[in-house]
Amino acid sequence: MRRVAVVGVGYSQFGELWERGFRDIVLEAGAEALADAELEGKEIEAMYVGNMSGGRYLGQEHIAALIADYSGLAEFGIPATRVEAADASGGLAVRQAYMAVASGLHEIVIAAGAEKVTDVGDPMEILSASVDMEWERFVGGNLPALYAIMARMHMESFGTTEEDLAMVSVKNHRNGVKNPKAQFRREIKVDDVLRSPYVAEPLKLLDCASISDGAAAVILASENVAREITDTPVYIEACTQASDYIALHSRKDVLTMKAVVKAAREAYKLARIEAKDVQVAEVHDSFTIAEILAYEDLGFSEKGKGAELIREGITEIDGDLPVNPSGGLKACGHAVGATGVRQIVELTLQLRGDAEKRQVDAEKGLALNIGGTGATAVVSILGR
Amino acid sequence: MRRVAVVGVGYSQFGELWERGFRDIVLEAGAEALADAELEGKEIEAMYVGNMSGGRYLGQEHIAALIADYSGLAEFGIPATRVEAADASGGLAVRQAYMAVASGLHEIVIAAGAEKVTDVGDPMEILSASVDMEWERFVGGNLPALYAIMARMHMESFGTTEEDLAMVSVKNHRNGVKNPKAQFRREIKVDDVLRSPYVAEPLKLLDCASISDGAAAVILASENVAREITDTPVYIEACTQASDYIALHSRKDVLTMKAVVKAAREAYKLARIEAKDVQVAEVHDSFTIAEILAYEDLGFSEKGKGAELIREGITEIDGDLPVNPSGGLKACGHAVGATGVRQIVELTLQLRGDAEKRQVDAEKGLALNIGGTGATAVVSILGR
Repeated sequence: MRRVAVVGVGYSQFGELWERGFRDIVLEAGAEALADAELEGKEIEAMYVGNMSGGRYLGQEHIAALIADYSGLAEFGIPATRVEAADASGGLAVRQAYMAVASGLHEIVIAAGAEKVTDVGDPMEILSASVDMEWERFVGGNLPALYAIMARMHMESFGTTEEDLAMVSVKNHRNGVKNPKAQFRREIKVDDVLRSPYVAEPLKLLDCASISDGAAAVILASENVAREITDTPVYIEACTQASDYIALHSRKDVLTMKAVVKAAREAYKLARIEAKDVQVAEVHDSFTIAEILAYEDLGFSEKGKGAELIREGITEIDGDLPVNPSGGLKACGHAVGATGVRQIVELTLQLRGDAEKRQVDAEKGLALNIGGTGATAVVSILGR
Repeated sequence: MRRVAVVGVGYSQFGELWERGFRDIVLEAGAEALADAELEGKEIEAMYVGNMSGGRYLGQEHIAALIADYSGLAEFGIPATRVEAADASGGLAVRQAYMAVASGLHEIVIAAGAEKVTDVGDPMEILSASVDMEWERFVGGNLPALYAIMARMHMESFGTTEEDLAMVSVKNHRNGVKNPKAQFRREIKVDDVLRSPYVAEPLKLLDCASISDGAAAVILASENVAREITDTPVYIEACTQASDYIALHSRKDVLTMKAVVKAAREAYKLARIEAKDVQVAEVHDSFTIAEILAYEDLGFSEKGKGAELIREGITEIDGDLPVNPSGGLKACGHAVGATGVRQIVELTLQLRGDAEKRQVDAEKGLALNIGGTGATAVVSILGR
């Protein structure tokens, strides 16, 4: 397998984009990535698109062919493939593109992710299609309810508090203020979170990421080609994917996301680093408890001690291990299929030194993108 | 890139499977493929699942994780990836699995395809989401209407007749009688087709494949591993994918599926054969005109002369180039996401000599799987 570099990144504004269509936002992200890489488009040899529910939100499937067409790449007839694993769809798109280049099959490949949720449909219901519809959702176990079970168990087992969870949201909102493309750019306080209404106890409104519109794109190239294109390549040193039982009740340990543990272990091995070597991370904080679990399952802390990292300020943007300097899913908005790609955009900007007001000092970054309650996990390690 | 072999195949009954669920039929196909390969399951290193519209038919996304779970493979945490390109989703699953093995990343990978359409929803509307919803479907251009335009233009340009189209359906029904898993196992006559009601003139009911339930699975392995597993490996000598403008009105020539031409040309080159070397083919006869166009765009005939092959009996099961010995989409039933995988199952059985009453004599076979009206095409060439 060859080394693969990120040579261009782009993403649209995230938020409630009532006045813009699915095609518009994907093309904006793609065009920004092409401009960033100083490519015209015809150099792209293949395209992967992560999208969870175009069929239900837009009445449109065949998403990758649609995007290849509207971006002008259908003229060249390139393979265009949509991948889906709920809100890990974006991570999958990056991974397939990575594999296509690492294997030597292609030199330059684009991975995009997008979701447009504000037009039609019931986003909460549609996003809950990431869990087992017959055995979880049917009996009321939608996404917030299942994460609430995890949160409650974590509190009972390890003494994590609602204040700890709130602090995750407060941190990510504080970071989001510095991200011009984030949906929520205002600071909040722990009290704001605690006083927001319960969605599924103990999770409150401000513990939950919003389901948002947005698109992101990254252009990957083989090492040799990357050196010709850019002076600041950021390398993907590992990109791994693992699965777990889809239903929470089938897992031996509800508080360990086995897919995250497995994908992370493999990624560290491939990148020849350990958890302690990670200097910045973008993790999947669809709910605040998910960020605490990520700390533990990625090995940033022992199991049960995730909350200590937030209490001690370690994962603050000026801490030892900044997590979600972009604002994360919470402040950026969770544009489902786009999120996994947006994370790679953020890490690339951070490692290049292009993250402006939210810049951290790092040479190694990690991204964790999760599908549903953890049935799919994608872990990427980037380095400069 | 390494050589890749098909070492196990399986598929469910195709049809209106009211009494069975999505999970049931996928597991049946997968279990049959495992039994065929004499594997237990734990040897599988990755899974790709082709499915077009689980979100709309079942209210369920995250399809690949679901299948990994229900097939017992989540225990091993293998990467499970859903791919979608309308009715080319199955072909994409095979191609991703092929790439995963050919690249050296994995030794044994399963590709499955499935669709369950009879439970809920409006299959005609849901399948039409394969075309440009904003610029085609919105103004009435659903899938039969667009293929009707192609058929009418072919008749006007090249003298193809409604009888020619009918003969495609008659041939495929005749073959389907010999396929125990086909949905429609009865012979029909040209007159039956001509007297069936118009769906979109000149296409009649019996020119159109049904939208059906079904699942199929193939297990791929690297050449070395394949030799240990089976005495009758069938090699995938090429598996290529291309795209075209999604909307018919954007294409310079409506009667040439550019994606098919491109994918076929690349496949012939990789397999080091020419069109004339193909001895059996499974092509995408979602509508009878699609099979005529396939003859032309795959190079089995010159452009405009596709109908001659059906008139002269060349593509009959006992002709020089049997096409759709399985019964094709028309007689098997078009289980959207499953079709592209079912085609590989059929070619494998044919090349192994396991096709029983529908056996043809062939060493090289080709499969063509199309998404929508040709915005995606996947061409596979198999050999023994």
